[in-house]
Amino acid sequence: MNTSSHNNAPVHSNPLLVVKIGGNVIDDENKLQDFLQRFSKLPGLKILVHGGGKLATRVAEAMHIPQTMVDGRRITDAETLKVVTMVYAGYINKNIVAQLQFFGTNALGLSGADGNLIKAHKRIHPQIDYGFAGDVDEVNTGLIAALLSQGITLVVPAITHDGQGLLLNTNADTIAQELAKAMSKKYAVSLLYSFEKSGVLQDSEDDTSVLPVITASSFARYRDEGIVAGGMIPKLQNAFAALDAGVQRVIIGHADDLELLLENKKGTTILHD
Amino acid sequence: MNTSSHNNAPVHSNPLLVVKIGGNVIDDENKLQDFLQRFSKLPGLKILVHGGGKLATRVAEAMHIPQTMVDGRRITDAETLKVVTMVYAGYINKNIVAQLQFFGTNALGLSGADGNLIKAHKRIHPQIDYGFAGDVDEVNTGLIAALLSQGITLVVPAITHDGQGLLLNTNADTIAQELAKAMSKKYAVSLLYSFEKSGVLQDSEDDTSVLPVITASSFARYRDEGIVAGGMIPKLQNAFAALDAGVQRVIIGHADDLELLLENKKGTTILHD
Repeated sequence: MNTSSHNNAPVHSNPLLVVKIGGNVIDDENKLQDFLQRFSKLPGLKILVHGGGKLATRVAEAMHIPQTMVDGRRITDAETLKVVTMVYAGYINKNIVAQLQFFGTNALGLSGADGNLIKAHKRIHPQIDYGFAGDVDEVNTGLIAALLSQGITLVVPAITHDGQGLLLNTNADTIAQELAKAMSKKYAVSLLYSFEKSGVLQDSEDDTSVLPVITASSFARYRDEGIVAGGMIPKLQNAFAALDAGVQRVIIGHADDLELLLENKKGTTILHD
Repeated sequence: MNTSSHNNAPVHSNPLLVVKIGGNVIDDENKLQDFLQRFSKLPGLKILVHGGGKLATRVAEAMHIPQTMVDGRRITDAETLKVVTMVYAGYINKNIVAQLQFFGTNALGLSGADGNLIKAHKRIHPQIDYGFAGDVDEVNTGLIAALLSQGITLVVPAITHDGQGLLLNTNADTIAQELAKAMSKKYAVSLLYSFEKSGVLQDSEDDTSVLPVITASSFARYRDEGIVAGGMIPKLQNAFAALDAGVQRVIIGHADDLELLLENKKGTTILHD
């Protein structure tokens, strides 16, 4: 990957917003509805990416399908793949779409299989068998552009396919990042990770300690000092990879602050130096 | 409705095939795969409509959600709506789409909520509370035409929405019929109901006793003589209503005979006199 390609990125006239909504918001019906109403009011071209939060776990429990997590990632056996396909691409996706329609947004839900939107391959890992987990190979940017140009807002669940008839469970953060990267060839893409925290925190116990800007060099320093740790490290690494691939900006912040995040008045903005 | 509009229907150069696939085929993984391979080989513009067969009942059982059927129709309470949304729009729809992609057909699954494809209202019935059951009001023909023109085959589950944020369970036969009727304004539509019988049978116990053609007048006679009875009567009434609305032909037959049905070599073709 060319790490300096962001400097040579073409100037795009057409902004596109890719928003990933986190599990805790999806788990709470009222929070989700508030979020969707705010999301529907944002102007311009939009893609919403979602996972499934705890509902997939609850459905699996109800159906007596045991769940295994390794490093916070669900091991997707054949029965679990059925559950996540039902919950992510079915229940959650269609409810989000129906609610956005009510809020006046012409939403349309597409899994990675639909229109060959996102092609992936089954993850091969030397130590861990993740089961039917997919790593993204290719995004159908033509289909996305065609739908966006018709005033459609896409809603994408964390399900891809391999082109051989197999559906695959794929991390929603990764899908948001891959969509943002692929679409940055045609659009000025803002990638927004919204969840239940106010941004990247200096003190994880203090929600007011948001770092407003993180650059490549400050990231290295924060990491050395242990200020940024744990699951936030790969998230930020992915953010820089997205910038390298041509994404204009990456923002991390609270789902309640959607408008303010985009105005850089809240949350953390990830920037190159 | 103008019952003679079929006589005045414009000549269309663009054929469109709307196929409804029945529950028994969906319930059997191998039969479904065979059907999808045959379906993918049919030339031209296509829409596939499906319900969910017994899988919804099995998932509801596993989740201890009691199911009530009245006259063969599922009563859709709030919990059952969750199940059918998961199973129809999620599991079955996405698996059909992924398999069609494997067979070389660029399939894309859309519920009635997606892109406001099919708007419906909650059924109001004087005696029976069907719960979250939808009766179709409007089909977004523009979206369908736009997707078909991009070489996309649509796969539509038996789920609609009311535009107020509510998903609704809608009979798959009805969805196929409404899509066929609405699209007949722009296309020469063939509507094909494929299931596990060879057509409309003269003797319901004898699968070789197929009536090859049923016209409006022969239908009246068969009904008076009790040759056509039960659930086949509303199916045929719907077929004639579709012809009245401009659909070019309606065919009923076995899912194994897809090509032969379209050549009128097998199955039952419904025609006006």
